Amino acid sequence: MSRAEAAEKAKKVRFVILDIHGVLTDNTLFYTQNGVKSEGFSLHDRLGIKALTESGIGVSFLTSKISRADEQMAKIYGVPPERLWGQGAKMAKVDEFERETGLKDEDLCYVGDEMIDLAVMKRVGFSAAPSDGSIEARGAADYVTSAGGGRGVVRELAQFILDAQGKWDPFMARFK
Amino acid sequence: MSRAEAAEKAKKVRFVILDIHGVLTDNTLFYTQNGVKSEGFSLHDRLGIKALTESGIGVSFLTSKISRADEQMAKIYGVPPERLWGQGAKMAKVDEFERETGLKDEDLCYVGDEMIDLAVMKRVGFSAAPSDGSIEARGAADYVTSAGGGRGVVRELAQFILDAQGKWDPFMARFK
Amino acid sequence: MSRAEAAEKAKKVRFVILDIHGVLTDNTLFYTQNGVKSEGFSLHDRLGIKALTESGIGVSFLTSKISRADEQMAKIYGVPPERLWGQGAKMAKVDEFERETGLKDEDLCYVGDEMIDLAVMKRVGFSAAPSDGSIEARGAADYVTSAGGGRGVVRELAQFILDAQGKWDPFMARFK
Amino acid sequence: MSRAEAAEKAKKVRFVILDIHGVLTDNTLFYTQNGVKSEGFSLHDRLGIKALTESGIGVSFLTSKISRADEQMAKIYGVPPERLWGQGAKMAKVDEFERETGLKDEDLCYVGDEMIDLAVMKRVGFSAAPSDGSIEARGAADYVTSAGGGRGVVRELAQFILDAQGKWDPFMARFK
Repeated sequence: MSRAEAAEKAKKVRFVILDIHGVLTDNTLFYTQNGVKSEGFSLHDRLGIKALTESGIGVSFLTSKISRADEQMAKIYGVPPERLWGQGAKMAKVDEFERETGLKDEDLCYVGDEMIDLAVMKRVGFSAAPSDGSIEARGAADYVTSAGGGRGVVRELAQFILDAQGKWDPFMARFK
Repeated sequence: MSRAEAAEKAKKVRFVILDIHGVLTDNTLFYTQNGVKSEGFSLHDRLGIKALTESGIGVSFLTSKISRADEQMAKIYGVPPERLWGQGAKMAKVDEFERETGLKDEDLCYVGDEMIDLAVMKRVGFSAAPSDGSIEARGAADYVTSAGGGRGVVRELAQFILDAQGKWDPFMARFK
Repeated sequence: MSRAEAAEKAKKVRFVILDIHGVLTDNTLFYTQNGVKSEGFSLHDRLGIKALTESGIGVSFLTSKISRADEQMAKIYGVPPERLWGQGAKMAKVDEFERETGLKDEDLCYVGDEMIDLAVMKRVGFSAAPSDGSIEARGAADYVTSAGGGRGVVRELAQFILDAQGKWDPFMARFK
Repeated sequence: MSRAEAAEKAKKVRFVILDIHGVLTDNTLFYTQNGVKSEGFSLHDRLGIKALTESGIGVSFLTSKISRADEQMAKIYGVPPERLWGQGAKMAKVDEFERETGLKDEDLCYVGDEMIDLAVMKRVGFSAAPSDGSIEARGAADYVTSAGGGRGVVRELAQFILDAQGKWDPFMARFK
């Protein structure tokens, strides 16, 4: 898909759903010898999420199970608890969300990196994958970020979507 | 070895034995000032291990000592406890496994990155090493992944083996 | 800006203010499943900070909130507690600092990587950004380091500033 | 220096002294919000250290202060406690070691990455630096590894030294 075609699709986005592992992280899980898990997230994405939400575009996390680390980062990113969706059946969750909000597939953007994300990626109006996502996810995506997972995928995507909607410059203006 | 020759060997694989350090991890050990060890594993490999086991190919870990971190990741990867083999004498363990199961060298795939892995790599039907493995391991391997240790070696290898066996597309089909 | 023009500006620097996240770190926050946060800093920067301070150029950290990790690293870097500035309103803090010390904008260097840093970057005499900073920060910077955040940004910057001021060789001389 | 000249010098090495930060690690220090420090070391280097010691070449760590993490890794690497040297005055420690053992400068190899290492690097018979060491350390080194700090510097260096001494193939032979 050309960048111009992707921008056409991005124009319609009203809500962005983010897979966590491989998108907000680089897919690495750390474990201590005592069995304590940890994960790394990028602060690059904070500005992306802030830009989206302050421009009127909602953001949620969708993964099979929300961890305490995800909750902590959600606070930092400014994503409210009711938008942390821990559910393995991703399609069913999107169905439910559309029913509740009246939003349609073409209003949604989904970002994912693996097989389990393909069905939702193909369904929504605009889909994206990180540069180090699986070949299948990158093949299915309308937009592949130059950033790898955990290195600013949402920062880059937010700029692309808001640029397409003419909202990036107004957002940036406050920082001048 | 050409890719076609490697694929010929991969066709016969019925069981995959994975070294842990340098294959499932990037060989880095973290220690706190209190002496607590941790290690990082990639979720990229979860899909690879799932694809292998659901296609009828067994998977085990073989390292000198199984840590608590390895056990936690094995749960996430879907590798059962009896397939976590903590034994320094790798050749002896493979002997024992073949005796118990009737599997032969040509049925086995082994993935390793260092000198200690060479004997098993040369013995089995199909061997692989990560792109950042030692020069000796890469030299001995039938297949060198483009992924480095801890960055999706098994994800890539599983696709190569299952493609060779005509099982990748059937596995993928469930995600469409 | 040419390297020669940047060096002209660097000649006047008497104080260096460092953003933390994305400059002294690579912007990654780690969280354990128990909600404990950690961050990584580079010892490469220790020599840079030491070179600046021992050559008579002050150094401070400016971020919205100073963490315990920042305090620990400040000890290692040799930055005293009164120069750890936890304040979201960066411009106001710079105003206050100039009032207290009599230093002027052209005496200051500021290093940042994101939108929130732009106003201070444009104000001070000499500004810098890491190679993996946001496109806006890099665009606003007088000098973009070849090092990425957390990989020696201050080491490289210190050498550039002190070289411009003819103070690098005298500092180095003690190590011969 | 040409590779052949470096190999000439490497032939005489009987003892290898390793700086820790930036050599055995990538120079990153992690701190939790509770002030607990951690560091990452590479298992790639275990084989290098083993190859040196089993070929009759001693190995020690020399850094300003030995941490608990260093002690843990020393056990894994097979470096005995009496060879963990925590001393900021590196030249004095080398003096003392030569007095005690009768070894001379030309018998020693030193690996370092920063200014503080330069004096010892220039003194010993054979010096090395990682590919991401400071420009000064790389400039002073007889040999610059292709590996970066914490990514197998000692693994690579051991092979270079033992190859020069005709001891690499005998060491490798046990793995065939």
